[in-house]
Amino acid sequence: MPSEEVTNEKAAPKERKTAIAHKLATKQQEISVTEFFEKNKQILGFDSRSKSLLMGIKEAVDNSLDACEEAGILPDVSVRVEKVADEDYRICIEDNGPGIVHKMMPNVFGRLLYGSRFHALRQSRGQQGIGISATVMYGNITTGKPAHVISKIEGEDEVAWGMDIVIDTKTNRPIVTNDKAFNWEGKEHGTSIEYTIKGRYVNGKQSVFEYLKDTAIVNPHAQITFHDPDGTKTVFERATDTMPPKPKEIKPHPEGMEIGDLLKYAGNSQQKTVRAFLRNDFSRITDRIATEILEKSKVKEDKKPEKITRDDAIAILEAIKTVKIMAPPTDCLSPIGDTLIKKGLMHVLDGLRPEYYATPVTRSPKAVNGNPFVVEAGIVYGGDIPSDGQVQILRFANRVPLLYQQGACAITKAISEMDWRRYGLEQRGGKGIPFGPAIILVHVASTKVPFTSEGKEAVANFPELQSEIGLALRLCARNLKSHLNKMERKNKTHAKFEIVQEILPDMARKCAEHLDRPVPNLDRTISRIMNVVWIEPTVKREGKKLRTVTYTVYNYTTLPRTIRLHARLPKESVNLTLFSHQCFLDMNDEGKANWEIADLPPSTSTTVSFELTGDMADTFDADDIYFSGLSTTMVMGAETLPGDWGIKGLEIVQTDESDLVEEDEEETMEAEDLGDE
Amino acid sequence: MPSEEVTNEKAAPKERKTAIAHKLATKQQEISVTEFFEKNKQILGFDSRSKSLLMGIKEAVDNSLDACEEAGILPDVSVRVEKVADEDYRICIEDNGPGIVHKMMPNVFGRLLYGSRFHALRQSRGQQGIGISATVMYGNITTGKPAHVISKIEGEDEVAWGMDIVIDTKTNRPIVTNDKAFNWEGKEHGTSIEYTIKGRYVNGKQSVFEYLKDTAIVNPHAQITFHDPDGTKTVFERATDTMPPKPKEIKPHPEGMEIGDLLKYAGNSQQKTVRAFLRNDFSRITDRIATEILEKSKVKEDKKPEKITRDDAIAILEAIKTVKIMAPPTDCLSPIGDTLIKKGLMHVLDGLRPEYYATPVTRSPKAVNGNPFVVEAGIVYGGDIPSDGQVQILRFANRVPLLYQQGACAITKAISEMDWRRYGLEQRGGKGIPFGPAIILVHVASTKVPFTSEGKEAVANFPELQSEIGLALRLCARNLKSHLNKMERKNKTHAKFEIVQEILPDMARKCAEHLDRPVPNLDRTISRIMNVVWIEPTVKREGKKLRTVTYTVYNYTTLPRTIRLHARLPKESVNLTLFSHQCFLDMNDEGKANWEIADLPPSTSTTVSFELTGDMADTFDADDIYFSGLSTTMVMGAETLPGDWGIKGLEIVQTDESDLVEEDEEETMEAEDLGDE
Repeated sequence: MPSEEVTNEKAAPKERKTAIAHKLATKQQEISVTEFFEKNKQILGFDSRSKSLLMGIKEAVDNSLDACEEAGILPDVSVRVEKVADEDYRICIEDNGPGIVHKMMPNVFGRLLYGSRFHALRQSRGQQGIGISATVMYGNITTGKPAHVISKIEGEDEVAWGMDIVIDTKTNRPIVTNDKAFNWEGKEHGTSIEYTIKGRYVNGKQSVFEYLKDTAIVNPHAQITFHDPDGTKTVFERATDTMPPKPKEIKPHPEGMEIGDLLKYAGNSQQKTVRAFLRNDFSRITDRIATEILEKSKVKEDKKPEKITRDDAIAILEAIKTVKIMAPPTDCLSPIGDTLIKKGLMHVLDGLRPEYYATPVTRSPKAVNGNPFVVEAGIVYGGDIPSDGQVQILRFANRVPLLYQQGACAITKAISEMDWRRYGLEQRGGKGIPFGPAIILVHVASTKVPFTSEGKEAVANFPELQSEIGLALRLCARNLKSHLNKMERKNKTHAKFEIVQEILPDMARKCAEHLDRPVPNLDRTISRIMNVVWIEPTVKREGKKLRTVTYTVYNYTTLPRTIRLHARLPKESVNLTLFSHQCFLDMNDEGKANWEIADLPPSTSTTVSFELTGDMADTFDADDIYFSGLSTTMVMGAETLPGDWGIKGLEIVQTDESDLVEEDEEETMEAEDLGDE
Repeated sequence: MPSEEVTNEKAAPKERKTAIAHKLATKQQEISVTEFFEKNKQILGFDSRSKSLLMGIKEAVDNSLDACEEAGILPDVSVRVEKVADEDYRICIEDNGPGIVHKMMPNVFGRLLYGSRFHALRQSRGQQGIGISATVMYGNITTGKPAHVISKIEGEDEVAWGMDIVIDTKTNRPIVTNDKAFNWEGKEHGTSIEYTIKGRYVNGKQSVFEYLKDTAIVNPHAQITFHDPDGTKTVFERATDTMPPKPKEIKPHPEGMEIGDLLKYAGNSQQKTVRAFLRNDFSRITDRIATEILEKSKVKEDKKPEKITRDDAIAILEAIKTVKIMAPPTDCLSPIGDTLIKKGLMHVLDGLRPEYYATPVTRSPKAVNGNPFVVEAGIVYGGDIPSDGQVQILRFANRVPLLYQQGACAITKAISEMDWRRYGLEQRGGKGIPFGPAIILVHVASTKVPFTSEGKEAVANFPELQSEIGLALRLCARNLKSHLNKMERKNKTHAKFEIVQEILPDMARKCAEHLDRPVPNLDRTISRIMNVVWIEPTVKREGKKLRTVTYTVYNYTTLPRTIRLHARLPKESVNLTLFSHQCFLDMNDEGKANWEIADLPPSTSTTVSFELTGDMADTFDADDIYFSGLSTTMVMGAETLPGDWGIKGLEIVQTDESDLVEEDEEETMEAEDLGDE
């Protein structure tokens, strides 16, 4: 520790013994970022041949989709993989994006840490200006061949430019050869990159095909064409012509900002006063909030932002913590949404029919270090999903499927740290990835996804993020548990009632035989004992896409009964038959449909049925049926219409017994689970 | 795709419509490496407060140990953590290393990607020139305070220099203030860094204390002093004054080199011919091998290295694949070794007494991309290690404990992909981290450990590396399984023989009572039935460190028997009592000890006993006892002395039965397991 200060002059000795420190000093040198990544290619995701092949494609496709979306163009991306030698593959990715102006092409493809999206607070796939140039570099290193890049921008006078690019790893600068303009026939605008890379083409879970398929699912506005090394062409057709809402660029949100961030923003601010700086350079800081922050922090409002001191900054940050500030705006984000989550889950099922789709959950946005993020989750369960292994986990970040580094991911960690035994899945010790017939999907969308490394394969464990993932999962799992509870109750009652229906007539028949009397009709007796309206669904499948759902309604009571049924159907899947059914009342915009069965005589039954078609047909759970018009205890096989259902049910006209409402165990669970919200 | 080429001149249009591409182009810009890491601090390991606190200390201690070892100084490192505000901690790390020359100090601590070890092929903790400057930057960002660095190099005329350093994140350059020379009292040489950082001080598995403790264990030549925020001082004492062999700097090994590497080496070579280049710029390429490579690749031997073409390079790499080249030299690596692996395992046990220490395995070195690496593994099992959870995994890389990102690590992956059910651990479906009372330690040492990110928390899944880890683990697990098999056999025989010993005398007594005759002595009868020499160990513990091991040898045969016992003892733990025992013969350098029991009369017993003390006493498994002088089937409780044991056993003097040798199941297992070697 310092004990006595001497002046600089006095301290500089004329002669020095050659100390080891001097020898070490001669070795000290700058490392170029390219050299660094060349030597640490695993950090970019290029650690095995099969992964390397995928990584490059992923980076190029990410860029193509980003560029198209920024320009408002429906993406049309083609990927071609050709085998040119034992381990050498020629890869070409072409898009119909806006193109890249000629002079920018070398830097975009031939220089690491160079890009347009790094400083923008807006959801995009690429952010770091590393991916595509790293791909070019890895191609260079492994095969010695340059990448060939073509781009044409929009405009009648524009021509296409093509060039060969190699990265000089010592200087991190592109070396361009064969730079030529030409007429790209039939192409108005777009970019193509072709490179040769050492790789291994694999099938299965972590393949190019799977990546493109998953990408197509969560990007239904994109058309993706894939030519595999065998020459097979697969087209993942565009499913919608509507572009997803373009994420807006926002200002940083003050939540979770570091002192260094604040000082930096202040230093760069164009504003004249601290008040204006707070008011205009951040999102969600209103005049009122700015006043509050200034009052609490005791920083003068007309101080120039660049004059903010460390102590001012600390005071402002402390004040921000105590002030209530609105959550960050969501229009900078583009969540996948309910339907696509269900479709994503359906796709991995690959023909398997699950028993239950838990309602997907989209959380409201939060912020880490000024970056808003939103978490979505979905679960499918049961049916013929294999039940002997760990559950399958599907991870997405900013609409990009994550295929590698599952173990390193905050998503996996959040799943592993939840006690799934409470939600009906098997899990040893209540920790680790659970076992059972389920698939869990999680999507994290953010203006800045915190990846664990430049390869963008796993999301880092920021506490705020992990807690949000946990909450989304628990909400989803609660739906699942509620379904499992419902099924269990239903199965139990079912078993009990079947006994009544079988044993009583059996006894009657035996007694009649014994006494040599005619067998009595027990319908009314059974009805009196059972005293319920029984609703039972059956689902018939015709072909791959058509499902007929029929609810048989038995009146096992001694009086005629009027009951309404309610269900939320996947609207786009509803066939016309629905509207022709005599009991059908109406269906609203959300697909909530109502039926009424009027005056069903005792000991008789009737049916309500409809057809569902198309992709989403499978996501309707026939057990998700609700009723109104009778008391809870009088109906078996459907749930009481919840008060917040949004449509009006039939009022209860007659109550045979007092309305015994069981304590709702899910409600209790919710309170316990989500107490931290 | 290009269809028609036009000349450059013709293509440059005079006027352009303002295309969206131009708008995008204005946003394209260079990103400084500092800005990149500032925004992606999770990549450096600064993703949570508690982790951030540890990361900085880890980087500083790594540097201190590296510097001391390079200078041949026994490291003396002190770490002080003080709480200065709610989440603000002042951290100071001071060492007795060689120091850093004055003019290099700003760059070493204030510039990312600047260092001395990046280009050296030699095992070291730091390599990337990122860690300590990232720590300085993170301190700056979170608290706004500069780091204070002091260094003094060796030499009578030298003074110490202290300075405050802040990193300018826009330019990645240090900003130095208060640069002053002073007299560092009592300090001949060394470096100290003090910085303030937002953090959270935690206890437990991922704490500073644990990190320092683990570090001290695998670096027994270092003395580490820790002052925690409560003011408690802990000294992890130096356990040895011997420095570990200093890893030598080597030339790249040709195994697994990419074409880009070869072209780069060739371009930078000082050699005049390709032959000389191959011979002198790589390790393990002899004259004969160079000839073979040149012949096979058909590259002219007198070609200048810088003239090597892409095709030449491909041919040379192909040739290298077919030529037998010696494994890389090991003197660039510094494995932990048997003893320290056992000590490392013992430490985490924290007083628990395991049943078995599997012999640690150190694999022979391999290379990835020219970088030699070596894998070591160790397992402890049973005793009072908790058996209800997943096994505990201890990961080390270049003698640095890895505390985070277990899920992302090749070590964890290798463990998860092994079927541990074959080795006696529980594992659902033969995949995932196994369950049971075991702790698994793996150390990867390399001239370049491929970490998954700059935070150096997990090792990437290079196939070559993962397969080596798998082999080391299987060899280790095989030891475990062999122990478990032995225990099972022993327990079974033990049970059977106890029955004979109890039931026969019982029957005899009852018969005698019944017939009113004296109870006969059955010793000889029992001996005739059992016809074995029975060896039974007992272990007594006195206090914490002393263990007395006693083998009772019973002669349950009808003749006097001579038998030798053999065991490999932890030499440093052997107490003098060993040498005073009447049966003791000798002990060699490896700790292999021999005893002889001569002419033990029938139906009598005798004992062999010795004392073990110190840390390593616990690592001796009393069941690891071998015998010679009798046939395999005549002895229970010990194994036949293996032929490769290295010391001569007693010859078998008398065989009572034909030598039925069971098929050795472990041998079969080995062939199957290690077929890929």
